[in-house]
Amino acid sequence: MKGFGVLKKGNVGWMEKPDPVCGPFDAIARPVAIAPCTSDVHSAYEMDGPHLVNRILGHECVGELIETGSEVKDFKVGDRVVIPCTTPSWRYPGSQDGLHQHEAGLVSGINFSTYEDGTFADHIKIRSADLNLALLPADLPAETAVMLTDMMTTGFHGAELAEVKFGDSVCVLGIGPVGLMAVAGSALAGAGKLYAVGSRPDCVALAKVYGATDTINYKEGKIYDQIMAATGGKGVDAAIVAGGDLDTFYTAFGICKPGGNVANINVFTEIPSFNIPIEYTGGGWLGHITLRGGLCPGGRRRMERLIAIVQAGRVDPGKMITHRFKGLEAIPEAFQLMVNKPRDLIKPVINFN
Amino acid sequence: MKGFGVLKKGNVGWMEKPDPVCGPFDAIARPVAIAPCTSDVHSAYEMDGPHLVNRILGHECVGELIETGSEVKDFKVGDRVVIPCTTPSWRYPGSQDGLHQHEAGLVSGINFSTYEDGTFADHIKIRSADLNLALLPADLPAETAVMLTDMMTTGFHGAELAEVKFGDSVCVLGIGPVGLMAVAGSALAGAGKLYAVGSRPDCVALAKVYGATDTINYKEGKIYDQIMAATGGKGVDAAIVAGGDLDTFYTAFGICKPGGNVANINVFTEIPSFNIPIEYTGGGWLGHITLRGGLCPGGRRRMERLIAIVQAGRVDPGKMITHRFKGLEAIPEAFQLMVNKPRDLIKPVINFN
Amino acid sequence: MKGFGVLKKGNVGWMEKPDPVCGPFDAIARPVAIAPCTSDVHSAYEMDGPHLVNRILGHECVGELIETGSEVKDFKVGDRVVIPCTTPSWRYPGSQDGLHQHEAGLVSGINFSTYEDGTFADHIKIRSADLNLALLPADLPAETAVMLTDMMTTGFHGAELAEVKFGDSVCVLGIGPVGLMAVAGSALAGAGKLYAVGSRPDCVALAKVYGATDTINYKEGKIYDQIMAATGGKGVDAAIVAGGDLDTFYTAFGICKPGGNVANINVFTEIPSFNIPIEYTGGGWLGHITLRGGLCPGGRRRMERLIAIVQAGRVDPGKMITHRFKGLEAIPEAFQLMVNKPRDLIKPVINFN
Amino acid sequence: MKGFGVLKKGNVGWMEKPDPVCGPFDAIARPVAIAPCTSDVHSAYEMDGPHLVNRILGHECVGELIETGSEVKDFKVGDRVVIPCTTPSWRYPGSQDGLHQHEAGLVSGINFSTYEDGTFADHIKIRSADLNLALLPADLPAETAVMLTDMMTTGFHGAELAEVKFGDSVCVLGIGPVGLMAVAGSALAGAGKLYAVGSRPDCVALAKVYGATDTINYKEGKIYDQIMAATGGKGVDAAIVAGGDLDTFYTAFGICKPGGNVANINVFTEIPSFNIPIEYTGGGWLGHITLRGGLCPGGRRRMERLIAIVQAGRVDPGKMITHRFKGLEAIPEAFQLMVNKPRDLIKPVINFN
Repeated sequence: MKGFGVLKKGNVGWMEKPDPVCGPFDAIARPVAIAPCTSDVHSAYEMDGPHLVNRILGHECVGELIETGSEVKDFKVGDRVVIPCTTPSWRYPGSQDGLHQHEAGLVSGINFSTYEDGTFADHIKIRSADLNLALLPADLPAETAVMLTDMMTTGFHGAELAEVKFGDSVCVLGIGPVGLMAVAGSALAGAGKLYAVGSRPDCVALAKVYGATDTINYKEGKIYDQIMAATGGKGVDAAIVAGGDLDTFYTAFGICKPGGNVANINVFTEIPSFNIPIEYTGGGWLGHITLRGGLCPGGRRRMERLIAIVQAGRVDPGKMITHRFKGLEAIPEAFQLMVNKPRDLIKPVINFN
Repeated sequence: MKGFGVLKKGNVGWMEKPDPVCGPFDAIARPVAIAPCTSDVHSAYEMDGPHLVNRILGHECVGELIETGSEVKDFKVGDRVVIPCTTPSWRYPGSQDGLHQHEAGLVSGINFSTYEDGTFADHIKIRSADLNLALLPADLPAETAVMLTDMMTTGFHGAELAEVKFGDSVCVLGIGPVGLMAVAGSALAGAGKLYAVGSRPDCVALAKVYGATDTINYKEGKIYDQIMAATGGKGVDAAIVAGGDLDTFYTAFGICKPGGNVANINVFTEIPSFNIPIEYTGGGWLGHITLRGGLCPGGRRRMERLIAIVQAGRVDPGKMITHRFKGLEAIPEAFQLMVNKPRDLIKPVINFN
Repeated sequence: MKGFGVLKKGNVGWMEKPDPVCGPFDAIARPVAIAPCTSDVHSAYEMDGPHLVNRILGHECVGELIETGSEVKDFKVGDRVVIPCTTPSWRYPGSQDGLHQHEAGLVSGINFSTYEDGTFADHIKIRSADLNLALLPADLPAETAVMLTDMMTTGFHGAELAEVKFGDSVCVLGIGPVGLMAVAGSALAGAGKLYAVGSRPDCVALAKVYGATDTINYKEGKIYDQIMAATGGKGVDAAIVAGGDLDTFYTAFGICKPGGNVANINVFTEIPSFNIPIEYTGGGWLGHITLRGGLCPGGRRRMERLIAIVQAGRVDPGKMITHRFKGLEAIPEAFQLMVNKPRDLIKPVINFN
Repeated sequence: MKGFGVLKKGNVGWMEKPDPVCGPFDAIARPVAIAPCTSDVHSAYEMDGPHLVNRILGHECVGELIETGSEVKDFKVGDRVVIPCTTPSWRYPGSQDGLHQHEAGLVSGINFSTYEDGTFADHIKIRSADLNLALLPADLPAETAVMLTDMMTTGFHGAELAEVKFGDSVCVLGIGPVGLMAVAGSALAGAGKLYAVGSRPDCVALAKVYGATDTINYKEGKIYDQIMAATGGKGVDAAIVAGGDLDTFYTAFGICKPGGNVANINVFTEIPSFNIPIEYTGGGWLGHITLRGGLCPGGRRRMERLIAIVQAGRVDPGKMITHRFKGLEAIPEAFQLMVNKPRDLIKPVINFN
């Protein structure tokens, strides 16, 4: 098999490897549509570890099955499937406690480009196929479905972690693709006022399409000040951190009412500590502010649920696609786009035939 | 004051009464927009009790304050306010257990046309004004806001009782105005497949506008059979009973998957018992099917939350209004319309000035 | 292998079968302690179906592993293990929706004496061993641990389904072994007043040991009347149905306050319908009374959690054991005891070793 | 009236004030039993603000009513009542969102020794008496009941905020009186392994009485290391911060498993920020660790619920009383004890009668 990934830290390129072996519960797919993610860039240039040497990257994919294991019951060769970013083995008791993402320890449910090779390849192996794959409906474009595998499930998880309920006022901080899906997820959870914080015009426009009632440009004043002005000094019921820097993260606490929920779906790894100013913590947490952080939910039922939402017409994550590429050979160019992050980029996708 | 209501069981008409006295925490309003409800018809013709003699009916209202008590802090004469159907006194410890609707016993939170006179009058007294009223925003039509006071809060409560979450398949049984709001509430809670059961063309069309993905006409076959056919025999995650008869109620259990939720927001009072067939109960309740029933949530924050949702453009309950009347004198005609229930009726409203 | 079970409906006895084959994820145990259950009697004499012909009964067991499959990682031959009644395959996406008991349809998570042979045998096959077994701690008597596999997990699930929280008033209807564990589970969930309804002196005495504050003898008056007298007419926050007949079940609704929770962990299968009187339903469900029913949770983590509770000294389910037997040959006698149900029986156990 | 409190920051003493005026919903009590709290010391010596000048301190009290307002329905002169630390007015819509502690802004539900005078006095005014008082049962010693008003409600809230459920492993950091009640609350919520972190022998011994399975002395090694050693490197499901310094707070995150809950019921006010090391945050919050902080729940139903728990014999908070005083004149001495905090002090109480 041929794939694109990290040769060693800071060095990306093509690699040839033996074709993956399909275990009895596994399936092998060829890519139908894939997308690079900012996390791939992190894995290539910022993260360390022996698992990131000669490792094929990529974790967002719709594929067509070319082989299925002997114990796979619900899928067959030729099926087009949505492959979630998070594909647990479902063989550890940890998932019985409700967190498949961490079935056998922190982040152990993410297999692509960590323990095994990722989706930037002509052969993609998926473990526990019956428990992780979802059939792609005929009327759902593959490139739209790719948006579900990480962006939509993570963004919607932001709304879940923030426990958005009917009429809540919500602020989503950061409106790249994950933040945009947090906006859509909050609107679809019944938010009332929905503030989206960002500056890039394309993102701001799309945030409104996805349900933001107000947008806040952090270049025009402190986020805290703008939210307080907009809410008459009351703050919001929920804040979802989907981008920005540490100050953005801290601000999320400051703008919450007593009883408010902060959800973090941003990744902070290259820092020594979270240094949250006490004046942002509701009397040093006496104010019942809750912080929840989390990682993209995966598995078959999650994908089936998101597919049902998209098919019902409640949100179209395909609108985030700003750049389209074609075929395996385009992966390096699409990847480089994620490195460069031009101002008009929301999400690129690579289609195969 | 002058009002329209039940003189004695089976007899409706106008009545003159002394103007209401405004206690220190109360407010008095004149009507700006009111709507009759099927419950008013029940109160007039089917229910008994000394409280239903010379009782002014009506519980859906937007008003303009003409007097406020000495202890009312947040509202003043001239304010236009949304007045919820459920206006607890908030002075009983029961609401500390989370159910203001039953603060001092079953249904004790509903004051209009039970313990005190209702909203079909030129003077409307609201107790605990600061805790029950919500300011009508300038850009929200009063007649639309009337839909929030009972129809929307009750329908949305159906989605809450059914614990609808991202991607759930939901069936709403009955799509009169409460059922339509249950459809909208389920869609806004993130339902995937959303089946609406009804037969009247206007209601069916509006159910689709509010987010139904499929509609089911009970005249074309048993609801159970149709849902099972549509779901490949699996059933749905949640069923909301918003109309129909006892068979409809029983069917709601039958169409639920193991772990499914049945929410009842329909009123069954003139029956001796609920006779639920065991084959509809998931192995005699072993299948973790849950039944929740409930009554329209009220109070100020509920109204403010619903207003925020409508202002955000997520749902327009004003679309349910099919018949409009003008002025106090039109109440009997509008009321009679609820008695007759013509096939094209969804919801009437009476506007003042 | 040799086992005791149902030869055909109404006929129990010994049977010889080929030894079970240990699949790669399976384990085979010999019994260390087993217990018969009322459900075994139902399976033998009341239930129908091809799976109940020549079927070894039994589903409560502590065993010692005599073989483990090639893929089993966490257990080895010689380990003493607690084997839950509910042993899903964990290979169906249904469990991702949170209900392993029904992973592939109603009650599909229960394998013993349904799809495969049960635990009244000298060889006991457990599927998905890593996900279903829990190690028996050295200081936990095997016969006590047998009580966890069904009685404790089911009784505690009653308290979970009833959502018992700090200070709730709770009524447990029926104090056989499951009901006694519902009493213990409610006390351990922080119940305040805790009424236990039963008549047998041994059960009544043990209910007090497990945390009942009051006991109610249904022979001394209607349960409804006694609870209402005890609560000053207010009723209870939660009622758990763990025994009795249909009237008991209906009474559970009647004694709940508005907002109350009814949990059913009793088995009703041989009836045509549940015919709940409307006067027991809180105004026809307007009073926010919730009904939840359910089936014993199983799997490894559940057993590990219950073991932790018992080891912490919070409850001793071994106190329920009233009759002890020894060795495989005693199974028929112990089973017959469950058929006869003498007045002093709470729970029998059969020890091996 | 005469009371003891803070004259100005750093200065405590007696003060004479006009007797409180009893509004229509208020009640006035004389003290039957009161207790000083560490928060009183903070208020006297560390906190600032105009409300802390000539302010009578104290917020833990059982009293006997000497006057009731005209609108008080459920209490009468002579009633002995448990008076919670948190006595909201219940007249702000904020409590409809579920947080009476912050009904009109951060910590606004606490009235004693903030907006109005506290309980170290011969006259104690309680607002919204029907909604805040609970009748003292005849068989519950007043000095025991004083422990409910702040220590027990706060400690139990720790277990609530940590969402302790059946079989969770829990660590309570700090076992002063609030921490001891967090231990008892966790045990009563069904914790399995329950680690109590402290060093004072009396507290350690009492932690075991209240349900701790293991105690950890922070003087014998880092808490993190000891918990990790005790849990085989896995960590705990929940950590409750009830004492200690900032490092203790940070450690609470570090010892939690993915998906774990940190509850903070300690007060941190004199610090610039919370500087949480990233290695303690589960991959920078990717591991679904949740932080909840909060303030003691009050109001009538809360007190009634705690009373029911104590009357059921599930926990005896009176065991925390190590020092007893008698009469109003003893307040300064009891207060000074809280300042000095001798090693054998858990909780002092002052009895009147």
